[in-house]
This record gives sequence, structure tokens and C-alpha cells, in this order.
Amino acid sequence: MKAAVFGTGIVGQVIANRLAGLGHNVTIGTRDVEKALARTEKDMYGNPAFKEWKKQNASVSLGTFKEAAAAAEIIFNCTSGHGSVDALKQAGEENLSGKIIIDIANPLDFSKGMPPTLSPGNTDSLGELIQRTFPETRVVKTLNTMNCLLMVNPAAVAGDHNVFVSGNDAGSKSTAKEILKSFGWKEKNMIDLGDITTARGTEQLLPIWIRLYGVLKTPMFNFRIVMG
Amino acid sequence: MKAAVFGTGIVGQVIANRLAGLGHNVTIGTRDVEKALARTEKDMYGNPAFKEWKKQNASVSLGTFKEAAAAAEIIFNCTSGHGSVDALKQAGEENLSGKIIIDIANPLDFSKGMPPTLSPGNTDSLGELIQRTFPETRVVKTLNTMNCLLMVNPAAVAGDHNVFVSGNDAGSKSTAKEILKSFGWKEKNMIDLGDITTARGTEQLLPIWIRLYGVLKTPMFNFRIVMG
Repeated sequence: MKAAVFGTGIVGQVIANRLAGLGHNVTIGTRDVEKALARTEKDMYGNPAFKEWKKQNASVSLGTFKEAAAAAEIIFNCTSGHGSVDALKQAGEENLSGKIIIDIANPLDFSKGMPPTLSPGNTDSLGELIQRTFPETRVVKTLNTMNCLLMVNPAAVAGDHNVFVSGNDAGSKSTAKEILKSFGWKEKNMIDLGDITTARGTEQLLPIWIRLYGVLKTPMFNFRIVMG
Repeated sequence: MKAAVFGTGIVGQVIANRLAGLGHNVTIGTRDVEKALARTEKDMYGNPAFKEWKKQNASVSLGTFKEAAAAAEIIFNCTSGHGSVDALKQAGEENLSGKIIIDIANPLDFSKGMPPTLSPGNTDSLGELIQRTFPETRVVKTLNTMNCLLMVNPAAVAGDHNVFVSGNDAGSKSTAKEILKSFGWKEKNMIDLGDITTARGTEQLLPIWIRLYGVLKTPMFNFRIVMG
């Protein structure tokens, strides 16, 4: 699979590393390649600069959003939610058309201080916004409800817990589920919520996720839906 | 305990029945007592009219919001979210002052069609709105993230699953936890998220709750937070 991973942050790094480890051909897309490699500061979580990660992940290519999308069959959106639409616009509609976008981003808005709010939120979602803005793509929202280390290794939290899937196109959701399976997710733990409007539901898990992180003092937890 | 339960709908009925069964002195508060008893139609879920329920729950008193609140030490808000502030205003500030309000309501807004959105939502919550509007009360948001039958009987869904608690006053949260315990909740399954602003997190679980109800075809499920 030729995959583009948009975003050089920790989520993009972890997804790109996992895909490359599974033998896929991965290109990370970024706004400005030189700037991405020039950054030397750690991120807000204390993770090393992208340059260090890139050295250790030599099999992952790096290009602009346009270059990464042009070469890819599938695009993983791991940008910050507020920059996602702009990043996809930079890729160019002709390089997105007909392709699956696995949207992992959350529209966290830190502009009003902590804790962040959602923008868009409540009456809209980032998943819907991307699908609306790029109608020729097939957006599948998934994996956005947990820490990135858990996304690619569900066994990092023992026992059963869930990953949600939202999207308008059944075939694209099947592809997404195959990828989830290759990451280690059991099919019984995948919950298909329905069309892309259901992304409102999963994006609105973020506010409690952030509070739970504060209470539990670890990001290594997940939601499990328990039935009677 | 002298408890007022605001709301004659299914949530109010279930909470009042459970409290009365535990030996508490319970008065249901409503806008208009005669109208509440005159209704003959079933509710949107097919539950019998309030009059029928009242016959079977003779130990539960019925009064106006004002009468119920005046007699109570603690108030359970089981009204529809969009009517909660008005119901509490009708009770009169002098009948609320110093009292605990257990806020179980969700601010579901059906005015834009299905599925409902939240109003207030995202940058505010009903829990906060009630606390702000009635600063002399002590609001504890809890139980709003599940079906009402599960609220009062957590064993209806097998195994461990969680109930969340939000509120500014530690003593009131302790009281709320004692009530949860009497309903059957294990202390290890109660998660205290912090102050009343964390009610945004639990109220924003409703959008995915509604979608899960659609997918699972049963309201008898709950969220469990699984840790690594």
C-alpha cells in the first residue's frame, strides 16, 4: 500500500512508523520539508524533534502535502485538527480525488485556554467538514478517541476495548477495518457507528478523554462499551 | 432523606421509585400537578402515563416544583435539559439555597432535528449553567451518561462499568457517592472527574450514546474506562 501520512507530530510519527513496519510504502507529508527538518525543539509532550525521528525511520519518505498525496493510494490525516483542511487544500484536489482519507485528527481549539473546546463541534465535526470540502474523497473517521501508541498497539491496554469507525462509503470502511486489524485490533472491538455525521460522537469524546487523562495520570486508557 | 425529584418522565419515575424503595421520603415536583395527573398518553418510549405510575407508587408524593423543593434536603433534577433552569426558577431560590442538586439531565436540543445537538454545549454545560444560575446550591452532575434503569441498578449490565461525578463541593460529591452506592454502584466504578466544568465531558457523551443506541439496538449498555 502506498500511504501518505499528513503531519510530522507524534501521531504522524507513530502511524508512519507502524505502517512502514508492516511493509507499506510511506511518505510523510508536511507544509515545508526544510522547516520540518530544521526544528530542533521537543514537542509539548517531550518527544524528540522530527529530525531525530526521521533518522531512525529512514524507510519513511518525506515530502510536501502535494508530493505525499500524489504518490499515495490512501491518506492518513494526522495533522492538528485546526490545520487539517488547509493541509488537504495544499495537497490539491487532483491528488486527493477518489482516495480514502483516514481522518485521525481532532478539532481541538486551544484559543480559549484550557481545557480546549471543539471547533467545529456539536452541530458539525471535522470529519464532516473534510468530507464536505473534498466531496471526491472518501473520509473514514477512526482512531481519534485514544492515545496514538494505543492506536497502533491495542494490546498496550489489556483486555477488550473499542475503536469506532464513521464514514459514508462501506468499501472504504472495510479497507479501514483491514488496516485496524493489521494494527492489532480484533474485529469484535471495532464499532461501525454509521455515516460520517457520527464523527460528531467520537470527536465529542475528546473533552472527557482530556479530563480522564488528568484524573488517571496516564494516557494509556480507552473506552469500552459494555452491554447487558 | 427528604428528596425532591424534579420531572414526571421516565427518569424521574425510576429515580423516585428507587429512592422510595430505599426508604427515603420522596416528592416528585412538576410544573402543574393537575396536568401531570391528567395526561393519559404514553411517552415517546411507550412508557405508561404518569397517572398509572403514580397509582403504583403511592408512597411518592406529588407537588409543584416549589412545594417539592421546600420540603426537600436534596433535589434530583430529572427534567428535560431545556426545561431544567426554568423548573428550578419556579422552585424559588429560597427553597434551593444551600441544598444539593443532583443533576441527571442532559441539554438535548431536538429543535434542529435528529440526532439532537447540545444546548448549551462545547463551551458550556447544563451542569455549569445550573451552578451559575443558582450559586447558593451545590450541583453534582452524575448518572447522565446511561439509561435510567441502569442508573439505579448497575448490575443490569454485567461486570464493571463507570459512573462519572462532577461538582465543585467535595462534601456534596461524597453525599452523591453514598447515594450511588445505595443504588448498587461499586466505589471503584465511580470516577470523580473534578469540578462542575467537567460536566461538559459527560454531557458530550450523549451524541455517541445516541449513535450507539442505534447500532446496538438496546439502551442497556454503558461506558467502561479500561486502563493499561
